[in-house]
Amino acid sequence: MSDSDKKDITQEEAPENAKGITNGRNASETLNGKTKDDFDLAAVYVSDAQYNRNIFFDTTPEAIRLYLLYNHWVLRIVVYAFIIADLALAIFEDPAVIPLPIWATTLIELVCLAVFTVRLVHYAKVIPRERFWKDPKNICIIVIILLSLVDMLIYGSLKATGYFAVRWSRVLRPLLLVNVTEGRQLRRAFRSIRNALPQILYVFLLFMFSVLMFSLMALKLFGKKGLTTNDGGAYFNDYLEIVFDLYVLVTTANSPDVMMPAYNSSVFFAVFFIIYILINTYIFMSVFLAVVYNNYKKYLKEEVRQLVRAKRHKMVRAFGVLQERKGEEGPVVTQASWNQLVRLVQPDISNAHRELLWSVSDDSNKGCIGKVAFVQLADLLNMQVIVVKSRPHPLQMWLPSLYLSSPSRLICRMVRHRLFVYAFDLIILVNAVFIGLDEENPLIANAEWAFLALYLLEILLKLYTFEPRAFFSKHEFWNWFDTVIVISALIATIINSVLKSSGGYTSRQILDIVFILRVLRLIRVVDSIKRFRAIINTLIKIGPTILTFGQLIVVVYYIFAMIGMELFKGKIRFFDAESTDPEKAFCGNPLLKNSLFAKHNYCKNNFNNVVSSFILLLELTVVNQWHVLSSGFTAVTHVSARIFFVLFHIVVVIIIINIFIAFVLEAFFVEYTVDKSNLQSCLEKKIEELELGVKQDHLVGNLVDAMETDDNDMGTSESTKAKPALMFKIASKRYKTVDGLLQRMFEADLDPEDFAEDEDFDPNNPSNVTFPNPNFDSV
Amino acid sequence: MSDSDKKDITQEEAPENAKGITNGRNASETLNGKTKDDFDLAAVYVSDAQYNRNIFFDTTPEAIRLYLLYNHWVLRIVVYAFIIADLALAIFEDPAVIPLPIWATTLIELVCLAVFTVRLVHYAKVIPRERFWKDPKNICIIVIILLSLVDMLIYGSLKATGYFAVRWSRVLRPLLLVNVTEGRQLRRAFRSIRNALPQILYVFLLFMFSVLMFSLMALKLFGKKGLTTNDGGAYFNDYLEIVFDLYVLVTTANSPDVMMPAYNSSVFFAVFFIIYILINTYIFMSVFLAVVYNNYKKYLKEEVRQLVRAKRHKMVRAFGVLQERKGEEGPVVTQASWNQLVRLVQPDISNAHRELLWSVSDDSNKGCIGKVAFVQLADLLNMQVIVVKSRPHPLQMWLPSLYLSSPSRLICRMVRHRLFVYAFDLIILVNAVFIGLDEENPLIANAEWAFLALYLLEILLKLYTFEPRAFFSKHEFWNWFDTVIVISALIATIINSVLKSSGGYTSRQILDIVFILRVLRLIRVVDSIKRFRAIINTLIKIGPTILTFGQLIVVVYYIFAMIGMELFKGKIRFFDAESTDPEKAFCGNPLLKNSLFAKHNYCKNNFNNVVSSFILLLELTVVNQWHVLSSGFTAVTHVSARIFFVLFHIVVVIIIINIFIAFVLEAFFVEYTVDKSNLQSCLEKKIEELELGVKQDHLVGNLVDAMETDDNDMGTSESTKAKPALMFKIASKRYKTVDGLLQRMFEADLDPEDFAEDEDFDPNNPSNVTFPNPNFDSV
Repeated sequence: MSDSDKKDITQEEAPENAKGITNGRNASETLNGKTKDDFDLAAVYVSDAQYNRNIFFDTTPEAIRLYLLYNHWVLRIVVYAFIIADLALAIFEDPAVIPLPIWATTLIELVCLAVFTVRLVHYAKVIPRERFWKDPKNICIIVIILLSLVDMLIYGSLKATGYFAVRWSRVLRPLLLVNVTEGRQLRRAFRSIRNALPQILYVFLLFMFSVLMFSLMALKLFGKKGLTTNDGGAYFNDYLEIVFDLYVLVTTANSPDVMMPAYNSSVFFAVFFIIYILINTYIFMSVFLAVVYNNYKKYLKEEVRQLVRAKRHKMVRAFGVLQERKGEEGPVVTQASWNQLVRLVQPDISNAHRELLWSVSDDSNKGCIGKVAFVQLADLLNMQVIVVKSRPHPLQMWLPSLYLSSPSRLICRMVRHRLFVYAFDLIILVNAVFIGLDEENPLIANAEWAFLALYLLEILLKLYTFEPRAFFSKHEFWNWFDTVIVISALIATIINSVLKSSGGYTSRQILDIVFILRVLRLIRVVDSIKRFRAIINTLIKIGPTILTFGQLIVVVYYIFAMIGMELFKGKIRFFDAESTDPEKAFCGNPLLKNSLFAKHNYCKNNFNNVVSSFILLLELTVVNQWHVLSSGFTAVTHVSARIFFVLFHIVVVIIIINIFIAFVLEAFFVEYTVDKSNLQSCLEKKIEELELGVKQDHLVGNLVDAMETDDNDMGTSESTKAKPALMFKIASKRYKTVDGLLQRMFEADLDPEDFAEDEDFDPNNPSNVTFPNPNFDSV
Repeated sequence: MSDSDKKDITQEEAPENAKGITNGRNASETLNGKTKDDFDLAAVYVSDAQYNRNIFFDTTPEAIRLYLLYNHWVLRIVVYAFIIADLALAIFEDPAVIPLPIWATTLIELVCLAVFTVRLVHYAKVIPRERFWKDPKNICIIVIILLSLVDMLIYGSLKATGYFAVRWSRVLRPLLLVNVTEGRQLRRAFRSIRNALPQILYVFLLFMFSVLMFSLMALKLFGKKGLTTNDGGAYFNDYLEIVFDLYVLVTTANSPDVMMPAYNSSVFFAVFFIIYILINTYIFMSVFLAVVYNNYKKYLKEEVRQLVRAKRHKMVRAFGVLQERKGEEGPVVTQASWNQLVRLVQPDISNAHRELLWSVSDDSNKGCIGKVAFVQLADLLNMQVIVVKSRPHPLQMWLPSLYLSSPSRLICRMVRHRLFVYAFDLIILVNAVFIGLDEENPLIANAEWAFLALYLLEILLKLYTFEPRAFFSKHEFWNWFDTVIVISALIATIINSVLKSSGGYTSRQILDIVFILRVLRLIRVVDSIKRFRAIINTLIKIGPTILTFGQLIVVVYYIFAMIGMELFKGKIRFFDAESTDPEKAFCGNPLLKNSLFAKHNYCKNNFNNVVSSFILLLELTVVNQWHVLSSGFTAVTHVSARIFFVLFHIVVVIIIINIFIAFVLEAFFVEYTVDKSNLQSCLEKKIEELELGVKQDHLVGNLVDAMETDDNDMGTSESTKAKPALMFKIASKRYKTVDGLLQRMFEADLDPEDFAEDEDFDPNNPSNVTFPNPNFDSV
């Protein structure tokens, strides 16, 4: 069915409520003249709007079914699993952590590439051909796959003939993570960086000019003074060395050592370094943050605005598919269609929840909703409404006489009492002291059993008092945390003591796990203090966005690790503690004799496998001793190896870490300042009207308006009193998706009535090239 | 005259245009029935509004005259000079850089204290007595003066009897900088910090909890493994040591050394440190920045809002004093009164400038202005209007035939040509290469003369082409910069070569100055590149606010330096390069034998005098090697000395540096986003209407809207063409005061018609306790 056919149906036939239109489709299940295909199409639009997918799919029923399959979570997970497998190949390829023969890694890589190809072909079937070839991310994936194949061929043949060969295509692998359909956030982050680059470049050039000027001044001031560094070398008499030293000073890694010879010679020379640090370390680094932050915010804002527009487009299209004409009110969607749609979009939604959402949309109880109310659906579905079922305790059902007896009631009252929480906080603190003491002491070792018993007792008492399904509901993070930690600690402690008593053998690993679990248990104290809970909730909320940066970091680290491994593998060797090899003193490389690198015992910081590389890159990100680490690698190769390390510093520390800080700042400000959206207030009001709300005692004046801190108080709300069987509350501030947080950041700037009509929709904008609207029905 | 008298006049007499009211005042020079005292009073209000002074003075003529004297710039400078002298006493007091006898320093301090007392008494005369005793800053100064006197007495008598004595009151000295009347910005910064403290505290407690938890885990994981650090010590087996080490890791100062023993033992242990760094170094430190930034912004916003309200109050009061009733329009101020007022407020304003301001206020040319227009006056005066006088070149006047001859015109055209600038940029680059080369080479040494000659020639040519007074006008920063640098370099080079040729003696200091001047000359290149100029202009604009932070840093450093000197003076000694003292290897303290501190040759980083202390504190602020520096001082005293260093880190790095970053970020965002104010557009429009504007070719698309970058192009505008003799342009974005920048930051939130009527003015708010409005006439 062509687009124009589609348009005809929605525009002409739908208003007439014509029934039984088959028109070549599966018309078996019709509702108000809509076929199942119509509902499928609308559901796809709504679901795309909900998850901000901007894929321009064919609207034929077959393409929609293929598209639904394409978006299926199993397939998405499979793709990610194969990307991870592809990336993880670095562990097994030379230089390997666990060496595998070349044919094995090649085979795995071929399988991965095959999966990516199949996924791409699937995608090509879903969207129109000309769209497919216009989309740069598809081209990217095709190029990566082809280059990988070429590289494998070259590498294999060179290796077979005994030549030296480099697996250069490994650098491309992390780009798959960026170009895969689901990598929207990551692509957006990269686009933001790319857009900010020109401005960063100008500041960077000015900054480098400043460093070069100061270096020239340093050369003239200190070069002829005959000063020596702490290890006896000449001080500041080579221009390029000075530039490097002063660049390192910007990272603060060689402060104050680089200044000491001059300072020892005269106090006035310290002024030079103070001015340098003030200008280059403090002011320029702050300016970098300001420029990165400002650009990031600006472009992100624009992109999110486009995203919100696209979302509304899709909802309007879904409306166009399902609309009917009813009376004088213009096109509407009936409750029956709406119910059918919501059931398709979110099969696991409870009836009560769905009815609640409907009552919010259809505020005046007309049985049908117009476009404005319909468009809210995506946002309504994204709002996390927690359905609280008020059920009696199972024990009350099975043994009512016992459970309702006065001792039992006393226990329940006791457990619910504030003192119960305080008592266990005290126990945790005592436990902390015991953990700190020597565990060889038998008294202490036995005390551990007592503590475990107490914690178990606490959980059992709570389960006795509170309804177990409510206690272990999805949102009760701390209950889950407690139970998992206590039970794992119990199991690990039992295994440990069994091992000990049976053979006198203590497994170091199990003991370590026991220790970690014991200490983790102490975290519970934080949960008792409301203000801490509020801070932690904010941190948890920015978690998903930190994950996007995790991916960004992985991509950048992976590329640098691959290059670093090719450049530096095997140059520095690590000898473990038992080794008596004389080469141990200089990391197996005579060029490192008496070097600071060897003196600091940094031999394990090498590029000999992908794990060490990642840890080394992390150390370089932390920056301290950056110059000592890089000096080791320049010593064993060539002074130009510094380029690699400086480049890493610029990319990771100046750009990516600043974007990370910018994102945390922005996320915190959103948590501080953004009020509830209108829609959310509507939903809350409705819940209150229906008297289905859970009483929330807001904790005002905390770090953030601690909307959610009573999530974990749920278990303590008295469930035995007469209340509606079903209650709702909004986990208002916890948006499901990263996009949700981003949209909330900028939604204040968006007009809720702005439906992004065609006139202000720019198809030339690359950010929405995957979502134009050829068959958009302006109603 | 009492407040109620004043009210009577402004409310009743003024509207009737009653003439010759003497009422006990000096009525010699009246204008429209206003006495000179009225004008004085109004001028004081306007000037207070202009500079945001919130002093509640008596409105009697005598008090006003005293108040004018109090605000006189000479007295203000004298007070600051004595504060600096008081602070500088630390250089001469034990432990001294330049020792002076106790009687001398005591005498100087007594003089300083006397000056502060006189200033305070003067202040007490200006404001009503009950106000004086309510103001905490006056109480502070009195307490500081009294405590200083007590301390001097105790110290003197103890010293005289040979006992050990501590000059503890020296810690209080920098507080004078905060509590002096002019220290508004500094007080505001301190108030912002104080207000943000509770929230910072909660995050800090959570952060410390996290550090303690990780330390406990580290103790259990690594304590019994028998690992050793690089220098052979036991690794992670003492809880408090672990806490300290992990705290240091947050500052990144001991990364990756603290991790290496565990990492060498097993790769998995690196995971512990990675998680630690991620949570505590990256996330918590970002959260600190977010909390500090957010609170700072929030409270500052509130304070600046109060400030703007107070400014409008004062302007309304000034209006009340000068108002007359004219026709049906309600109270107005006539042009004559207005002129008189402006002349009093800003005696150096040119007539043309004043008329321009009047034409902006009185847009419809009525000869009088109402309240709304009058209130703008303070902002109008704050706007920097540059008056450009279009004058012919003096040579044209003296030697018209020569100056207007065709060779002369050719020179002028040449100098104005773009290539002239490029040619000199090229010369500068060549010069840079020559500077980098060895100056012992006679060719290079002589080339320097050639370069100096070229630069001089450039300045002379420019002076020949452009009008000298325009070339050296107040706003032509780069012209001044060039000339000063070239001329000083010339003088220094001549002195140097005279010294050299006369006695063969080369003064190292003069040579150093010559080198610095030569390199500074190269900065000129930056000015040729527009984008760089834009960035630098932004940096220059945030300069004044950086100065406020400079004061903040001085206050905090001074306090820590005083305490540090009492705690650590003489414990670590520095031996210069020639010294062969065996104690040199351990900084004169056997406790430092084989310590890292001595190995790094950090002996000069000590608290033996105030200059070393400040440099050491700066090194501690940069944080790198923080643990090595502090370890030296704990080694020579006690492990509890760490408290001093940790406290310094928390105060300076976590709080103050974050506020600094917050301020730079905010200032940059303002530069990025704030458009011109309405008033400014009015002024610009008026200048354009009158055809008095200087053609400005805006450089759009730079880092910031580069309004001012053509400041330095002024000289190149062709002044010989027929143009009005007088032109204006607005140095729009360069606000005179820090307050101006702050107000611009937040002015978007303020309604221009909001006159801060009494009802929403909270006299209980401590931030405006010095400015209530008892006789505010609501018109």
